[in-house]
Amino acid sequence: MENLRSLFSPRHMLVLSVALNVSLVLKIIRQRKNIREKVSRVSMEKPKDAQIAEESQIEASSNQNMHPTLSPLNVNGGDADDRRNVINLDHGDPTMYERYWQEMGDKTTVVIPGWQFTSYFSDAGNLCWFLEPELAKEIVRLHKVVGNAITEGRHIVVGTGSSQLFLAALYAFTDDASEPFSVVSAAPYYSSYPAATDCLKSGLYKWGGDARNFTKTGPYIELVTSPNNPDGFVRKSVVNRRGGILVHDLAYYWPQYTPITSAADYELMLFTVSKSTGHAGMRIGWALVKDPLIAKKMVKYIELSTIGVSKDSQLRAAKVLKVVSDSCGIAARPRENFFTYCHLLMAERWKLLREAVKQSGIFSLPEFEPGFCNFFQCLFEPLPAFAWLKCEGVIEDCESFLKSHNIWTRSGRHFGVSPSYVRVSMLDRDRTFGFFVKRLSQIHL
Amino acid sequence: MENLRSLFSPRHMLVLSVALNVSLVLKIIRQRKNIREKVSRVSMEKPKDAQIAEESQIEASSNQNMHPTLSPLNVNGGDADDRRNVINLDHGDPTMYERYWQEMGDKTTVVIPGWQFTSYFSDAGNLCWFLEPELAKEIVRLHKVVGNAITEGRHIVVGTGSSQLFLAALYAFTDDASEPFSVVSAAPYYSSYPAATDCLKSGLYKWGGDARNFTKTGPYIELVTSPNNPDGFVRKSVVNRRGGILVHDLAYYWPQYTPITSAADYELMLFTVSKSTGHAGMRIGWALVKDPLIAKKMVKYIELSTIGVSKDSQLRAAKVLKVVSDSCGIAARPRENFFTYCHLLMAERWKLLREAVKQSGIFSLPEFEPGFCNFFQCLFEPLPAFAWLKCEGVIEDCESFLKSHNIWTRSGRHFGVSPSYVRVSMLDRDRTFGFFVKRLSQIHL
Repeated sequence: MENLRSLFSPRHMLVLSVALNVSLVLKIIRQRKNIREKVSRVSMEKPKDAQIAEESQIEASSNQNMHPTLSPLNVNGGDADDRRNVINLDHGDPTMYERYWQEMGDKTTVVIPGWQFTSYFSDAGNLCWFLEPELAKEIVRLHKVVGNAITEGRHIVVGTGSSQLFLAALYAFTDDASEPFSVVSAAPYYSSYPAATDCLKSGLYKWGGDARNFTKTGPYIELVTSPNNPDGFVRKSVVNRRGGILVHDLAYYWPQYTPITSAADYELMLFTVSKSTGHAGMRIGWALVKDPLIAKKMVKYIELSTIGVSKDSQLRAAKVLKVVSDSCGIAARPRENFFTYCHLLMAERWKLLREAVKQSGIFSLPEFEPGFCNFFQCLFEPLPAFAWLKCEGVIEDCESFLKSHNIWTRSGRHFGVSPSYVRVSMLDRDRTFGFFVKRLSQIHL
Repeated sequence: MENLRSLFSPRHMLVLSVALNVSLVLKIIRQRKNIREKVSRVSMEKPKDAQIAEESQIEASSNQNMHPTLSPLNVNGGDADDRRNVINLDHGDPTMYERYWQEMGDKTTVVIPGWQFTSYFSDAGNLCWFLEPELAKEIVRLHKVVGNAITEGRHIVVGTGSSQLFLAALYAFTDDASEPFSVVSAAPYYSSYPAATDCLKSGLYKWGGDARNFTKTGPYIELVTSPNNPDGFVRKSVVNRRGGILVHDLAYYWPQYTPITSAADYELMLFTVSKSTGHAGMRIGWALVKDPLIAKKMVKYIELSTIGVSKDSQLRAAKVLKVVSDSCGIAARPRENFFTYCHLLMAERWKLLREAVKQSGIFSLPEFEPGFCNFFQCLFEPLPAFAWLKCEGVIEDCESFLKSHNIWTRSGRHFGVSPSYVRVSMLDRDRTFGFFVKRLSQIHL
C-alpha cells in the first residue's frame, strides 16, 4: 500500500507528467513538420522577389512567340536599376497578384488527396460534362457579386484558359460552314487572334483582319474585346451586318481595371482567371453562352482537343473565386476586399506611369473618360492591364527603341497598327514595375 | 525563500505540468481537426462506391460523343444485379485505380497555396517553357524505373492529355506543308483519331483511314498505338514508305497491361497519366520527342491553343509519378507496388471475363502470345485496358445486342471495322466490373 502510494506521490506524478509533456511537444513539432514538408514538397515555385534574382536571362526570338522568354527582371542584388538588366513587359504575366494572395495566407490553400479525379467526368448530367459543379456555382456567384455579366439563362462552358474557348467558339459557329467564315476584330486587336485563327489553315474559318476595313461579303465572326487588349478602351461591334456573329472577350471587364457600368448581356462572353484573379498558371477560363446548341458544339470541340479541362485547376479556381466573392462582403476590411486592393494598386501604377511619361517627354498614353462604376459606386477612369504607349516625334519603331534601353514590350505591328505603338504589361511584380517607370522617366532624346 | 520553494514544490509543479498536458492535447486535437477540415472543404468528389448509388442515369446520344453519359452503374441498394440498370463501359474511364490511391492514404496528397501559379511560365530556360521541372524529373525517373522508354536525348513536351499532344504532333510535322498530309492508322484504330483529325477541316492534314489500305501518294503520318486501343495487340508501323512519319501512342505500354519487352526508342512517343496511373481528370500527357524542331513546333501549337498546361495538375502528376516510382523500390511490400497491385487486378479481371465469355458461349475474345517482361522478370500474356469482344454467330450488331441487355459498349464501326465487334472498358470500379461479367455470363441465344 505504501509502495502504491509512493508510486502516486506528487514527485512520481510530476516525472510522468513532464515526460508526457515532452512527448506531446514532440508530437506537435512532428505534425507541424509534416504539414510544412507537404507544403514544401509541392511548392515548386518560389514566392515573389526571391525568385527574380535567381532567374536567368535568355534571348527572346520574337514578341509573337511566348518562348524563349526571360525573367521579369534580373537584379543582381540591391535595389539600384542596373540598366544592363532586361525588364520584360512583353507578356501579360499577371504576377502582380501574387502579393495579395500571399497576404491572404491559407484562405485559398487547396488540399487534393491522391485518389481524386480518376474519372474524365465531373457532372454527367450537365451539358458541359467536364465542368466541376463547385466552379459553376462560384462563377455564377462572382458575376452576381460584381454585376459585370448576366448568368441567368446561360450555359457555362469551362476551358483550358479563354484561348481554348475562343477556338471552341470559332468551331461552334462554323462547323457546318459551306465556305470559311471571316474572323475579324477592330485594330488594334489582340495579337494572338490572327495566329490562333490561321494556325491549322482551317477550312471553317480564316483571319479577315481589321474589322473596320472589312469589306468582303460572306459570313463573318467579329471578336469584340472590351475593355480592349491592347489599348484598354471599352468597345462595341463595328461591322454590324445582318447575320453577323459576335464573340465578346470580356477578360478585362472587372472593377480593378474599368468601371462596371452594366451587366454584360451578349450571346457569347469569355472570361478567364488569368486576368480576373491573376492565376494564369491554372489555365482556367469560362464562357457564358446563350444558345445551348453553340454551347454543345463548344463542349464537343474541347472533347476532341483535350477531353475536358484539368479538374485540379477547376477545384482551385472555385476556391479562389469563392474567396474573392467572400472578400467583397460588407464586413470585409477594405484592405482584404480583392477588387479594392487591386484597384488601388492599378491606380497607383497608372499614376506613376503617367508621371514617368511626363518626365520623359517623348511618349504618350491614351486618355480615358471616367465612368460610373456600379460595383464601387463611384466615378473613375479606366486603369487597363496594359499600357498602350506611343513613341512621339522621330521614333518610328517604339519596340526597338525601348529594347535599346533593355525594356521589352510588344510592337503595335502585332496588333495590326503602327510600330510607333507598343503594348506594356502593367501586371508584373512591384519591383519590376518600379524599375520600369524609373527607367522610362529617364529616357530622353 | 520558503514561499519561493513552495512555489516550486512537486505538488505545484505537478499542477502546472498537468495543465500544460491538457493544453497540449487540446492543441493536437485542434491541429488534426484543421487538417481534416481543409481536406473535407476541398474534396468535392465522393470516394468510390458511395458515389455509384447517387449518380443519376441520363440518356446517351452516340458512342462517339462523350456527352451525355451516365454513371458506371446505377445500383439502388443491395448487391443484386438489377438488369434495368445500365452498365456503361463505353468510355475508358479508369476509375479502377481509385482504390489503390485510397489505400495509399495521404502519400500523394498535394497542398497548393493560393499564391502559387500566377505566372504563365514554369521554366523559361526550357524549350517547353510551360513544363514544371519537377514533372520532367519524375517522368524521366519513372521511365527509367519501368524501362519502357528511352528518355536520353529526348525533349519532353507536356500536354493537356495526350489528345492535345497528338494534335500538336500533327501540326508540328505539317505546318509548312504544301499539300495536306494523310493521317492513317491500321484498323481497328482509336475511335477519336478520325474526328480529332478532321474536326477543323485543316489544310495541313486530313484523315486517310486504315493504314493497311493506304494507297494514296504524297506525304503521310502513320499513328501506331501499341499496345493498341481497342484490341490490345502490340503493333509496328504497316505503311513503311520512305519519308513516312510515325507517331507512337504508347499510352498503354505499362506493365499492368503488357510485358515490357524493351525500352521504346521512337522519334515521337506519347504517354498519359490517364492510363498509366489512372488520373484521367488531371488531363496530363507527355511526349518524348527526338527532333528539337518538332518539339518546338509542338510547344508552339500548345501555346496557340491553350497557352500552356495546368500547373496544378502538373504538380499533382509529379507527385503521383514519384509515389509510383518509389513504390517499385526493392523494400516495398508487393501489395504497395503500384504495378504489381494493378497487374494482379487486371489478371483477375481478365480471368473472370474469359470465364464469363465461356459460360455465355456467344462471344469471343482475342488470344495473346505471352511475352517476357523485363520489369516483372517473368512471362505473361497481355491484359489490355479494353476487351475487344466479338459477337459470334448470327448477331451482326454487337453494340445493339449488348445495349438490349443494358450493357453499353462502343461498336467496331467507330474503330473502322465490323459492328460484330465492341470495345469494352476493363478499368471501371470493381462493383461495376463484377456486375458486368455476371450479366455477360448469363447472356445466351
